[in-house]
Amino acid sequence: METRLQVVRNQSEKIIVSIGGNVIIRRGGRGTIDEQMENLSQACGYIGRMVKGGKSIIITHGNGPVVGNIVIRNEAVKDLIPPEPLYICDADSEGGIGFMIQQILYNQLHRLHNIKDVATIVTQVVVDRSDPAFKDPSKPVGPYYTEEEAARLAESRGWVMKEDSLRGFRRVVPSPVPKRIIEASVVKTLAELGVIVIAAGGGGVPVVEEEDGTLRGIDAVIDKDLATALLAKEVKADRFINLTQVDMVYINFGKPGQKGVPEMTVKEAERFLKAGEFAPGSMGPKVRAAIEFIESGGREVVITQPELIEAALEGKAGTRIVK
Amino acid sequence: METRLQVVRNQSEKIIVSIGGNVIIRRGGRGTIDEQMENLSQACGYIGRMVKGGKSIIITHGNGPVVGNIVIRNEAVKDLIPPEPLYICDADSEGGIGFMIQQILYNQLHRLHNIKDVATIVTQVVVDRSDPAFKDPSKPVGPYYTEEEAARLAESRGWVMKEDSLRGFRRVVPSPVPKRIIEASVVKTLAELGVIVIAAGGGGVPVVEEEDGTLRGIDAVIDKDLATALLAKEVKADRFINLTQVDMVYINFGKPGQKGVPEMTVKEAERFLKAGEFAPGSMGPKVRAAIEFIESGGREVVITQPELIEAALEGKAGTRIVK
Repeated sequence: METRLQVVRNQSEKIIVSIGGNVIIRRGGRGTIDEQMENLSQACGYIGRMVKGGKSIIITHGNGPVVGNIVIRNEAVKDLIPPEPLYICDADSEGGIGFMIQQILYNQLHRLHNIKDVATIVTQVVVDRSDPAFKDPSKPVGPYYTEEEAARLAESRGWVMKEDSLRGFRRVVPSPVPKRIIEASVVKTLAELGVIVIAAGGGGVPVVEEEDGTLRGIDAVIDKDLATALLAKEVKADRFINLTQVDMVYINFGKPGQKGVPEMTVKEAERFLKAGEFAPGSMGPKVRAAIEFIESGGREVVITQPELIEAALEGKAGTRIVK
Repeated sequence: METRLQVVRNQSEKIIVSIGGNVIIRRGGRGTIDEQMENLSQACGYIGRMVKGGKSIIITHGNGPVVGNIVIRNEAVKDLIPPEPLYICDADSEGGIGFMIQQILYNQLHRLHNIKDVATIVTQVVVDRSDPAFKDPSKPVGPYYTEEEAARLAESRGWVMKEDSLRGFRRVVPSPVPKRIIEASVVKTLAELGVIVIAAGGGGVPVVEEEDGTLRGIDAVIDKDLATALLAKEVKADRFINLTQVDMVYINFGKPGQKGVPEMTVKEAERFLKAGEFAPGSMGPKVRAAIEFIESGGREVVITQPELIEAALEGKAGTRIVK
């Protein structure tokens, strides 16, 4: 007998908002918690205003710089305390970052005299063990090592190590495609009840599913934009707002002829993507996630900076991606 | 306008189960994640069987040894990466431990062909800034330091340091009484919808409430037994099962005349407590939490080991505390 949530749902517009990891710890920042709280407060201020409009809000976020720090801390004392696998570091970061966003939104909504329940759901995301990414780990995580240390770690921990931008060697892990979100029905139910839900932090904790349906954590990095698109699909979100550090999507980015794109259809987006307009680790996955979302029935994706949310929703800033 | 959850609730018995931090990392264990998963699997196996009976289940857990490790890791690289305040370490541990329990229960319930939604809610617990504990910090956390280092940290970080069992100096933090659980209504709603909820991990993330209602994290340790009793009260639980490393409550514990107590009333419990029968950091808070819960309308508290849950619920093991 499968027990699933069944409740009376509200029918307000459902919006999924994703906060980039680089919005939490900015390049050049020290990364203190005060700094992270300040950065998140700014971003959440713009999100909070949308809540006032009676919409269902689900928030996802990146965790890149944060989980990187957790891994470095773990490895620094590995001879004293057994290091946590990467997937536990991910779960830790969902707790810490989730707490910050949850508290900030509670405080801001309280100020707007419109108290709402805000809750972080620790989220497991299923990836496929036969995903080609497992044969070609590519995402660097954690500290830099010398060539000697790297060889030792490859031996003792079974890690894949790669030379990284001349600063040394780093562990690389697979970045498989997210397939299913275990807690999606809980997230959907809470959002429809009016709770602001924070979920799939850092792309979620990667798990594989054994043949008997048993889940098991696995060391990998799930792209949070793709995880967000999947969650958006599973919770049947209407809109997907992707907050990052640039105001909109550009073609010829950083080159002569750079040009902002205020609106594109899925077809245009696919064409730009194929033409190599968007960097793989940066705008590429955001545009790919936008296409996934629209193709699975979503209405609209907006890519912009936190401070431009309102203008972007009115079509005056950012990039809109539609069918 | 205050928006609160309102849904059709089920009326099955609501049980809150608390897993001791020392059940997760046992004395003498190495504390690897494999070991923690194994320990939690055992404890959750007994909890999973109760779920089959159609009860609403909420799980809380300690985090002592786990958050201790997180603090040690943070301080070890504090000159390289800004250390997180203790309350963020707490939030991190809610994510990591919550993930483990959530996955284990999902896997076990899947095996029992009775899939249920399981969700960890990151939980903030309000403490009172005027709590006398803030004037007398007493809970040691994190690494041991030499007297010199301790003096330096007292100066630079404003920490209170105390000599601890001849192994050196440690930071001590306040252990204030929990007053209110911010996410209680979300926890209650989910539990009543049949979701197994993990909440108030490690006693919750301690926060103080400013005069305008704004929350702010604060470095403190909330006793998880008292936090559980408070959550039990706020979600209107019927029973509170407190899982620890001893099979039942004893008087004259570890002394001649040691005697197990199969059942006690609140009055008897109070008498034993006053007589100093229960150690402050150990059975004391469990009995105090039991009294709080029964006095606030709870029906029954059971204190026992994970492997004795079923026997204890039939009155054949453990200690029952009743009105």
